[in-house]
Amino acid sequence: MTFKEVDMVGSGNVAGHLIRAFHEAGIRVNQVFHKDAAKAADAASLANAQHGLIADAPPEGPLIIIAVSDDAIAEVSSLLPTSRTVVHTSGTVSMDALIQKERGVFYPLQTFTRDVTPDWKSIPFCIESSASALTKNLCELAVVLSEAVYTLNSEQRKWIHVAAVIANNFTNLLYTESAALLKKHELPFDLLRPLIAETARKAQQQDPESLQTGPARRGDIETINKHLDQLSDNPELRDLYRALTERIIQRYP
Amino acid sequence: MTFKEVDMVGSGNVAGHLIRAFHEAGIRVNQVFHKDAAKAADAASLANAQHGLIADAPPEGPLIIIAVSDDAIAEVSSLLPTSRTVVHTSGTVSMDALIQKERGVFYPLQTFTRDVTPDWKSIPFCIESSASALTKNLCELAVVLSEAVYTLNSEQRKWIHVAAVIANNFTNLLYTESAALLKKHELPFDLLRPLIAETARKAQQQDPESLQTGPARRGDIETINKHLDQLSDNPELRDLYRALTERIIQRYP
Repeated sequence: MTFKEVDMVGSGNVAGHLIRAFHEAGIRVNQVFHKDAAKAADAASLANAQHGLIADAPPEGPLIIIAVSDDAIAEVSSLLPTSRTVVHTSGTVSMDALIQKERGVFYPLQTFTRDVTPDWKSIPFCIESSASALTKNLCELAVVLSEAVYTLNSEQRKWIHVAAVIANNFTNLLYTESAALLKKHELPFDLLRPLIAETARKAQQQDPESLQTGPARRGDIETINKHLDQLSDNPELRDLYRALTERIIQRYP
Repeated sequence: MTFKEVDMVGSGNVAGHLIRAFHEAGIRVNQVFHKDAAKAADAASLANAQHGLIADAPPEGPLIIIAVSDDAIAEVSSLLPTSRTVVHTSGTVSMDALIQKERGVFYPLQTFTRDVTPDWKSIPFCIESSASALTKNLCELAVVLSEAVYTLNSEQRKWIHVAAVIANNFTNLLYTESAALLKKHELPFDLLRPLIAETARKAQQQDPESLQTGPARRGDIETINKHLDQLSDNPELRDLYRALTERIIQRYP
């Protein structure tokens, strides 16, 4: 039986955006739970839902989606009745952090910002569950929001998480390093923003391996040495420059 | 005297896009030079311009913009009359690679793709020249195309180039690494594309330093160690993961 309504736990970015998205897509948000009654009420108001404390969740009801920080998932699950069907929205936490027999993962692979409405249609949902019928129903629920729904196992989800750290967290570090370097030399980060946007845009359509450019890709040792020299008063960044350059040279010998 | 027309050397991406952009913006492209007559004709046809061999460029005429690969700039300059005013479009080559007395840099800071029309208005132009009157005229020419025109000296341009390598080339390497990791585990890169787009979009509006997330940012040593363990059969990538993680931890102690 496809889910026509959901209960939700959480009041952060992911919870708030999901509550709004379900509401707008015609999936009824029945009740929002939180350990803090005021936060439950706030989040519930996004979809005219009921609200309550996690510990007061009744033993029967619709699918519960736990959208809280990774390290709170197990505790939330332990406070919910074991008779409920429960999923979490994390890319990293094991499905088995949930104590309920009927359990799963409903993971939207995106970085969310409070005030920016997500483009749900394009966001990949990674689905996993304890039973194939539940997996099917979770996929059907995800399809209401997104055109990119994937059934994955825990092993695959682990790899996706490492890859996401590399493509998102590490990339943002590089943005930060370049911004800091410009700032140090009294240049605005705005100089690089269009390049950053275009680099990401190209990777939307092509294989990034075929898009690699730059001194390391060309084997331009002279420029590389000049850059390392320029970074000599910044040994940490120089070491990163060297490590990333060596990796490119290794990939494109 | 502001430039109302230009001559161009080159037939690659940058040359082609610039020829089209000037033509559409009402700057007359007078003549396109190339060492290969057929390529000169091809590029000239983009703007109904005349064409010719570099060695045949006359001693007088409008500004010449050399848009060729970095290592060909000095040679092209040496084939052009010393009496001409000449600029190149490179972010890395010194202005003094040009032998002409009236010389400069007209550098659009973007990565260009053959079949994608650049959004010129947003592309930063970095201007440098041998004389302040020429600098002013080059800026006025750039303003015809772009809303982001900067006068920089060679030292500043050097720093921009290092920063651009970090923000563009190294970032693309990370995209490639994440794509390869997914492929190895039979997962599509499409899973990460929306995340990559959103990460870059956020950096358009905010300081990337404030946007940093992930296990290293949280000091989540358990997840970091799990990831390092997962990457144990891929020592090069594991070392990169460790280096980038250590840098984030260093920045956010």
